Formats: sequence, C-alpha cells, structure tokens
Amino acid sequence: MTRTKFHQGLDELKQKLLTMGGMAEQAVQRAVNAYRTRDLKLCQLVLESEQAINLHEREIDELARDLLAMQQPMAIDLRFILAVIKINADLERVGDQAVNIVQRVMHMNGLPVAELPADIPGMAAAASAMVREALEAFIAGNAELAQKVLTTDDEVDRMNRETFVSMESVMASNPEVLHQALDVLLIARNLERIADHATNIAEDVIFWVRGADVRHRIHTISK
Amino acid sequence: MTRTKFHQGLDELKQKLLTMGGMAEQAVQRAVNAYRTRDLKLCQLVLESEQAINLHEREIDELARDLLAMQQPMAIDLRFILAVIKINADLERVGDQAVNIVQRVMHMNGLPVAELPADIPGMAAAASAMVREALEAFIAGNAELAQKVLTTDDEVDRMNRETFVSMESVMASNPEVLHQALDVLLIARNLERIADHATNIAEDVIFWVRGADVRHRIHTISK
Repeated sequence: MTRTKFHQGLDELKQKLLTMGGMAEQAVQRAVNAYRTRDLKLCQLVLESEQAINLHEREIDELARDLLAMQQPMAIDLRFILAVIKINADLERVGDQAVNIVQRVMHMNGLPVAELPADIPGMAAAASAMVREALEAFIAGNAELAQKVLTTDDEVDRMNRETFVSMESVMASNPEVLHQALDVLLIARNLERIADHATNIAEDVIFWVRGADVRHRIHTISK
Repeated sequence: MTRTKFHQGLDELKQKLLTMGGMAEQAVQRAVNAYRTRDLKLCQLVLESEQAINLHEREIDELARDLLAMQQPMAIDLRFILAVIKINADLERVGDQAVNIVQRVMHMNGLPVAELPADIPGMAAAASAMVREALEAFIAGNAELAQKVLTTDDEVDRMNRETFVSMESVMASNPEVLHQALDVLLIARNLERIADHATNIAEDVIFWVRGADVRHRIHTISK
C-alpha cells in the first residue's frame, strides 16, 4: 500500500465515521419525534436502523484494522485511527439508546396521553447537539470545541436530575399517570446517557489533540 | 523494540486488562454489598475506585498504542491489541455502572427499609459472572465460553424485565415505598447494563477468534 493509498484510506475512515454519526443522530431524532407524535412507524424505523448501525460499526472497525495492518502508521495517524475506533463504539451505543427510547415510546402508546412537566425534546436537542459538536471537534482537531461539549454535559445532567425529581413527585401525587411518568423518567436517563457518550467522544478528542501537542513539543525539544 | 520485548509487552497488556477486570468486578460486588447492608463506607470505596479505574483504562490504552507504534504487529497480534482496547472501554463502563448503583443506594439510605420482591444480589451475581467469563474467554481465546456469556445475557434480561414489572406494580399498589421500588428498578437496569458490557466483550471475543480462524483458513488455502 502506498502512502497515498493510506491517506485515501484515512479519508474514507473519516467519511465513514461521519456517516455513522449521522445515522446515530437520525436515530435519536426519530426516537424523540416518535415520543412527541406517538408515531409507531418512526419507532419501527429506529428499530430497523439498529442493524444498519451495527454493520456500519463493523465496517469502520475493519477499515481501521486494515489501515493499521497495511502500513506502519506515523504516531499522529495511529492516534487518529485509535480515536476513530473508540468514537465508533460510542456512536453505536448512541444508536442503542435511541432503541431504548422507542421501546419506552411503544410502551407509552398503550397508555392514555398524560401532560407531564418534562422537556424531553429540549433534552434531546441538547444531547444531539453534543454528539454533533463532539464529532465536529474530532474532524477539526479542535480541543476547545470538545471542551464546550463537556460543559453542555453538566447542563444535560441538570435537566436529567430535574426530570427525575419532578417525575418522582408526579408518580407520588398522581398515581393514575405513574407508568407514563416512569417512561418519561427513563427516556430522560437515556438522553443523559447519549450526552455521556458525546462526553466520551469529546474526552477522546482532547486526549488525541493534546497527545499530538505533546508529541509536537518533544519534536521541538529534540531539534 | 525486539520481538521478545514486544511479546513481553503483550503479556503485560493482558495482565493489566485482567487487573482492570478485577477492579471493575470488585466495584460491582462492593456496590451490591452496599445495597444489601446499606453500608455507606462501601459506597465511598466504590466512588473512590472510579478514578483508579479511569487511570488504569488510560494506562492500558497508552500501552496498547505504544505496542502498535513500536512494532508492526502481525495480523493476529493486531486483532488482539484492538480487542483489548475495546474490552478496556467496556470494563471502564462496568465501573461506571457500579458508581450509578451506589448513588441509588445512598439515595435509599435516607428512606425506611422496604422488603421488595426483587433479587438484586442474584442479578448481580449473574452479571458479575458474565464479566468474569467474558474475560476468561478472551484470555483463553475460547469462542464457546464467549457464546455461553451471550446465553446468560438473555437470562439477565429476563430478570430485569421481571424486576421492572414487579417494581412498577409495587409503586402502583404501595405508594409509601414508591421511592425504594424506583431505586430497585434502576439498580436492576444498571445490572442489566453490566451484563450488556459483558455481552459486548463476548462478541468482541467471538469476532476476534473467528477473525483469526478466517485468517488461518486463507493461509491454508494459499499454501
């Protein structure tokens, strides 16, 4: 494999990871739209997308492995490929969380609609934005943007805690909507988990960028 | 780096991963003992172990990267190192789930003790055994043992669903223990999540062993 082919492979890896990010984000958006509209067809789409996401994860892993096997990568490329492998696993789990959300939505569908004091779409928007920004930070090698994702995580954690407390109180005071409130509480936890995956990605980005910096500093010193 | 040093490095990587597995398992056991005995000191130990587990995760990642960087590994070694990187991430998240469990236990500690129809220690024993066996399967390169872990996962899923249904019913019929039942429901989900991580590890083992088989078959054909 020539150096050029290797770099084409790295570009392909980057593109595939972005596609994976898009698939995971779409799954989350569909899951939350399914929650808002109670559209079972959307639930079905999310369930079906799980396998496509899993396949795509394996493809990325295989390509990453082939790149590592076919050419001794330079330290910076090695770090990049290893970051892709970790981020890939997180994106796959974002897809899993979307599946968990639609399972709750399907459960809710058998129950009367209840107006509950919880901003699930707001939490979902924040968590999705974190996933998108963490990926953007990775592609741009931008540790500051990754740092911003970590800050937003505190916000999503706060929203999750608030939802927890208010749903617990609804369950205690309005037992007739206990099941619906429990579903909302669990969906909020799934969204908080998605934010955690975005946080993992952002931490990998910071580790990756800083590692590159450290490497760079050593080079400078040794000159 | 000589070939011998490289193999010493691989051994060290394996040992470190086993240590990581032991740390994660200990955290789960302590968390469940804290649940059983309501011992806040155990909760504290689990919270403190989180940072040690995170540090150990980074060390394993660094060693794996150094091994990849210092010597062009053979395909089978490459697969092994990449499997370690993935398994390492799963073990770290097992530790996170232990932290989530003790957070629930600390919440329960402010509430009256309630006898609830849920076998948390049984679920914990099953989930812990899965993590241990998945790691054993990895070290032994034993795809059959890994397959057994996947079967146990169905069992833990079933226990989680049963706990969910019975805690939902307790919450509806005994609102005075609503908060305790919710805590138990969430702890059961954390344990189910631990079983999922063991499943991820087992799947990586099967993928890794089968990949080696495929590689071996190609070698045989090309002879």
